[in-house]
Amino acid sequence: MQIGILGGTGPAGSGLATRLASVGHDVVVGSRSAERAGEVVDGLHARWEGRDLSIAAADNAGAAEAELIVVATPWDAAWTTAKSVRGQLAGKIVLSMANALVRVGHEFQPLVPPRGSVAASVQAAVPDSEVVAALHHVPAKELGDLDHPVESDVLICSDHPEAKARCMELLAEMHDLRPLDAGDLTQAAPIEAFTAVLLQLNVRYKTRVAVKFTGLDDI
Amino acid sequence: MQIGILGGTGPAGSGLATRLASVGHDVVVGSRSAERAGEVVDGLHARWEGRDLSIAAADNAGAAEAELIVVATPWDAAWTTAKSVRGQLAGKIVLSMANALVRVGHEFQPLVPPRGSVAASVQAAVPDSEVVAALHHVPAKELGDLDHPVESDVLICSDHPEAKARCMELLAEMHDLRPLDAGDLTQAAPIEAFTAVLLQLNVRYKTRVAVKFTGLDDI
Repeated sequence: MQIGILGGTGPAGSGLATRLASVGHDVVVGSRSAERAGEVVDGLHARWEGRDLSIAAADNAGAAEAELIVVATPWDAAWTTAKSVRGQLAGKIVLSMANALVRVGHEFQPLVPPRGSVAASVQAAVPDSEVVAALHHVPAKELGDLDHPVESDVLICSDHPEAKARCMELLAEMHDLRPLDAGDLTQAAPIEAFTAVLLQLNVRYKTRVAVKFTGLDDI
Repeated sequence: MQIGILGGTGPAGSGLATRLASVGHDVVVGSRSAERAGEVVDGLHARWEGRDLSIAAADNAGAAEAELIVVATPWDAAWTTAKSVRGQLAGKIVLSMANALVRVGHEFQPLVPPRGSVAASVQAAVPDSEVVAALHHVPAKELGDLDHPVESDVLICSDHPEAKARCMELLAEMHDLRPLDAGDLTQAAPIEAFTAVLLQLNVRYKTRVAVKFTGLDDI
């Protein structure tokens, strides 16, 4: 599948681009600046030389031409960026992975966007698209390190059951990620906010945590 | 230690009472009605006959006499119940475990109390006490089943570091629970809200999930 990543030059976007390309997808990393996207993509190809990853660079409008679109911008740019390519996103699945967080002193605190979550804001910006929220808790750096698996559960929610199911299939292709159906887009609010707790644990314990649920062994 | 549980007749409170008594603490289960508390405690003694659990019954004012107090009421009674025994709670650690949730159709949704979390509301109700938030994600029924361990991480947050440390020690006595320092009471908001996601998974997958974090193996 061709997958475009809006705002794909940060750790989360480029990590996801790398991981998706590693399982055979054609990924387009988008950015406000196509030049910046080109630099990041060159860096990914250099790092993973010999792996033959299909990752191209474009501006966000170019990335929005893909079949499935990921919004990986910082949270305060998610609404604007999605809206700027609303026409191209119509009828497509749009995966939102941003979290609204702020660092206050040594503490990460969740912010509550006016619609409750970044994903709900994105859905409002592109009402003709099917927004799915996922991947908030997966550590970005680990996602981009193909030498190591990322053992993590991935909570997915959406108001569009078929789009959710398709994203669950996509994520399941990345071994060691276990997608879990967490309900409709209402749940993006607590899922996004919980990311602050994970970052807090990372600071406190000098590590990078991921979430695994017990009681789901046979899923 | 003597531990009083306000609103301790529900699944969470009675489960915690059982588990705390099983590791040697003297527990007082409180309720608005001492008679109701007596019935529940009789039931616990009958269920665990031969285990010699130290669990007594009282009204909430009686339970508030203990050294450490747990608020296990439904979330919408937590503020009022804590405030009603404010004098007795002064100078003590008060552990808040309630989550503000509502069931809408088949979906559990988190509610945001005016102060952001139930725990922050309780802290405001008893400003002379040291409120610690914990145990939101541990399945209540499993907590009360002494025949089986409850393998779960327990996120703990508080504005009072010493009270937090003391609660972490207390929880660590219950084998298979791993207490984790999640920062100050700000974090109670995302921790409480995330409980809705866990309940959602329980409904969707017909199970009872608990949270374990990867990346913390040597804690």
